[in-house]
Amino acid sequence: MLDRAQLTESVGALLGWDEQVNLPPGAAEQRARQGALLAELHHAAVADSRIGELLKELEKASGLGLVDEFRAGEAKSSRDPGSAPPATVDRAAVIRQARRDYDRATRLPAAFVGEKAAHSSRSYHAWAAAKAASDFPSYAPFIAKHLELARREAAYLGFEARPYDYFIDQNDPGMTAEVIGRLFRELAAGLVPFVRAVLDSRIKPPVRPLRGCPIDAQKKFGRLITAQIGFDYRHGRLDESLHPFCSGNGTDTRMTTKFNVDDPLDAIFSSLHETGHGLYEQGLPAGAYGTALGIHAGMGVHESQSRLWENQVGRGRPFWTFFEPRFRDAFPAQTTGLSSDALYLAINAVEPSLIRVEADEVTYNLHVILRFELEKKLFTGELAVEGLPEAWRKLAKELLGLEPANDREGVLQDVHWSGGSFGYFPSYCLGNMMAAQLWYRALEVLPGLEEDFARGDFSRLLGWLRKEVHSQGRRYGLLELVKRATGQEFSPKPLLRYLKERYGPLYL
Amino acid sequence: MLDRAQLTESVGALLGWDEQVNLPPGAAEQRARQGALLAELHHAAVADSRIGELLKELEKASGLGLVDEFRAGEAKSSRDPGSAPPATVDRAAVIRQARRDYDRATRLPAAFVGEKAAHSSRSYHAWAAAKAASDFPSYAPFIAKHLELARREAAYLGFEARPYDYFIDQNDPGMTAEVIGRLFRELAAGLVPFVRAVLDSRIKPPVRPLRGCPIDAQKKFGRLITAQIGFDYRHGRLDESLHPFCSGNGTDTRMTTKFNVDDPLDAIFSSLHETGHGLYEQGLPAGAYGTALGIHAGMGVHESQSRLWENQVGRGRPFWTFFEPRFRDAFPAQTTGLSSDALYLAINAVEPSLIRVEADEVTYNLHVILRFELEKKLFTGELAVEGLPEAWRKLAKELLGLEPANDREGVLQDVHWSGGSFGYFPSYCLGNMMAAQLWYRALEVLPGLEEDFARGDFSRLLGWLRKEVHSQGRRYGLLELVKRATGQEFSPKPLLRYLKERYGPLYL
Repeated sequence: MLDRAQLTESVGALLGWDEQVNLPPGAAEQRARQGALLAELHHAAVADSRIGELLKELEKASGLGLVDEFRAGEAKSSRDPGSAPPATVDRAAVIRQARRDYDRATRLPAAFVGEKAAHSSRSYHAWAAAKAASDFPSYAPFIAKHLELARREAAYLGFEARPYDYFIDQNDPGMTAEVIGRLFRELAAGLVPFVRAVLDSRIKPPVRPLRGCPIDAQKKFGRLITAQIGFDYRHGRLDESLHPFCSGNGTDTRMTTKFNVDDPLDAIFSSLHETGHGLYEQGLPAGAYGTALGIHAGMGVHESQSRLWENQVGRGRPFWTFFEPRFRDAFPAQTTGLSSDALYLAINAVEPSLIRVEADEVTYNLHVILRFELEKKLFTGELAVEGLPEAWRKLAKELLGLEPANDREGVLQDVHWSGGSFGYFPSYCLGNMMAAQLWYRALEVLPGLEEDFARGDFSRLLGWLRKEVHSQGRRYGLLELVKRATGQEFSPKPLLRYLKERYGPLYL
Repeated sequence: MLDRAQLTESVGALLGWDEQVNLPPGAAEQRARQGALLAELHHAAVADSRIGELLKELEKASGLGLVDEFRAGEAKSSRDPGSAPPATVDRAAVIRQARRDYDRATRLPAAFVGEKAAHSSRSYHAWAAAKAASDFPSYAPFIAKHLELARREAAYLGFEARPYDYFIDQNDPGMTAEVIGRLFRELAAGLVPFVRAVLDSRIKPPVRPLRGCPIDAQKKFGRLITAQIGFDYRHGRLDESLHPFCSGNGTDTRMTTKFNVDDPLDAIFSSLHETGHGLYEQGLPAGAYGTALGIHAGMGVHESQSRLWENQVGRGRPFWTFFEPRFRDAFPAQTTGLSSDALYLAINAVEPSLIRVEADEVTYNLHVILRFELEKKLFTGELAVEGLPEAWRKLAKELLGLEPANDREGVLQDVHWSGGSFGYFPSYCLGNMMAAQLWYRALEVLPGLEEDFARGDFSRLLGWLRKEVHSQGRRYGLLELVKRATGQEFSPKPLLRYLKERYGPLYL
């Protein structure tokens, strides 16, 4: 059954990849039916009652009540995982994850799943129409209904008292709104004044300094850098799609990027980002695929890997010491007259934006914090759905120093809530924090690391990440994983330090 | 269940396409397991006992004993399908095909299927080793075992008295070795002296006159011609693979071709060939997909469509009247100094070859006839496996006028028998015959057709094929379909006429 669960999952992932990369437009309906069949088969495999019986026995034998303990939040766990023998930790992790999957597959009534899917479909259209007309009131009832569904969903899974935590836990096992709130407050306190200073700087990055770069040359260069940092093309591909993504598993990792002839940096950083995800998947223990020991530790941890390669590595001077000559070889005419400093500033452009998906790595975190604060208050009831536009404007002004002129560039900009997708945004920012914390630890334990990069050698960093993060699978949650890898509690301080060290000299 | 049968089939086809077009080498084992799962799910859907019960009821209600009648060979049918009302014909066709699928899925014991698969795997390796060493005796016992398995398989499906007909019927429903034998004898009698004359001609086609043609330009040109003749890219793709093929269904038709920088004609004719298959799939009634009314009529009919577009259309002067200027635009430097006549001769090159897969459209038929004669005699017992090399040499000399120097370029050249694949070769030649017969009928009922081609308009031909062939699905077998479309009994005469009219003026 577990074998079938993994196979149906991986086939479903391939159908999704093919849909975004290859599908002829007239085949969309057939693909939807194929995808639904694979989802149904996957669900049947995961919800097999024999798994439930086996789980009960295993939980009884281990006698630890691990599941409830885990649910209460890993940070508050009374047991120190470090003190348990490794085999016990592994067994507990495997049982815990199998229980998560099984409960998720069996506790939600089919009627509820259908109701949520139908409402999501209606909400999506309501959102699209509301966004086009910048008309929040017509969309508000749909969010309200999604919040009600969300509370019911959380209750089915035993989270009735903490519905927002249920959604956070879905993305980052063991994480809670309380922990995130504390971390984000500290981050915002340091970041808001820094962002203000950078945006007020008289130094402005060049606007699209690299026009007319042929897609073929961009593809070739993208393949070069992704292979150079360690992506294993015997076990993966890099293709093109409207929105870049990484899917599949470590055996067959399918990444995509997108191309803009007038902005080759777009494809490069999308590719580096997805390669970070891909390297993580390729570094998970293949033999344990499908169990907690062979799957990623959560969306925040996943994002830490993509961000680390994209930002700490890919936007750094040593990286470009190696790649700049190759970049100029790839685009000789387009780079003529562009100085190294101007290129480096373009690579590290910071610009004010009200729109999250257009934000740079400095301001992006503030977009996330804004959404987290609003989601949290929606779930506690401190904020009514009707109050969202006003609350959004107020927070945007407070955090970003910008005020949306209308709801289209404010509360209506993201699609997520129309699908009942809550608790998803924080992972991005948790990933950024974790990336920075791993980065400084790597620099500490791997002396001369950036000299490696300048020679095109990224193997020591990848090896260290393989050991500290990839090979760990989902043995630990984000907080414990960071503590073990860095020797420090998880904190926003390294991210603040990194942003100041990278952007301060450029803009201040 | 039928819905699930089609969905699992189409997902399985996509896995196969992706394997040949995209799969990273390290993911082969995972893909094999995914493919096996889909095959298992497809089998379960097709073998569902409810289908068997439903079929029994339907057969009783129709009271025609259609299945046995069909099995006895459509040509000998005592009922004239033309005299039955259309609804009856359709219902009979649907029931007949459902019975074929159900029997095929349920009558072969799992142990037998496993035994054949295991023997095929061993045979493949034995064949590869034997071919490398040109050592037939080491491979002979594997063919003998496959023949024994083939007899058992035929017996499970009610063909114990005519095992070779079982395999022919698998590819071309209703066709028999007796009918094929008669047709092939007449074809060989006319073709052997003509081939001799062409190969003896002092006129020789130019050797690779188009070197250094960039793959990108070849891709663009391939897309142009395939779209121009009518392939619907909203419902399909053209990609690249080691061996060209066409898979999927009419909703999502996945074709491939291969490229050689020094021979752009290779990709062009592979693309035209696969587009013929693709147009057929796209012309099948989409609403009836999965029933006899929505699937192709057999491999011979399928091949008739690919061959007609590749050969009768694609190698003709009117086609090149339209495309030659575009071809020269795509490859200006490479076509400089190449006259139109030389290009046309290269397009219609005939060269002697002992190897089937390298053969041109004139000699190809003789390669097929050779294999058919040997397979037929293996099944009747007139020929023992040990006698194959000698019989092959004798027939090659007789038909092709060439004698293999060793078994590698003789009896060991094809992979097919190592997989127990018998009765597969004749479809190619049946397709060639049918293509020519359809062609002359089209010229007759569509006056000025070739003038259309010269203007780049292929719509009248496609419309006629849609009506006479594609829209018919598997309502009729090849013989009846040809008779209805052309008003004549199926015959090798049109193919002989076509080859003489096309190649006579060029070589004789």
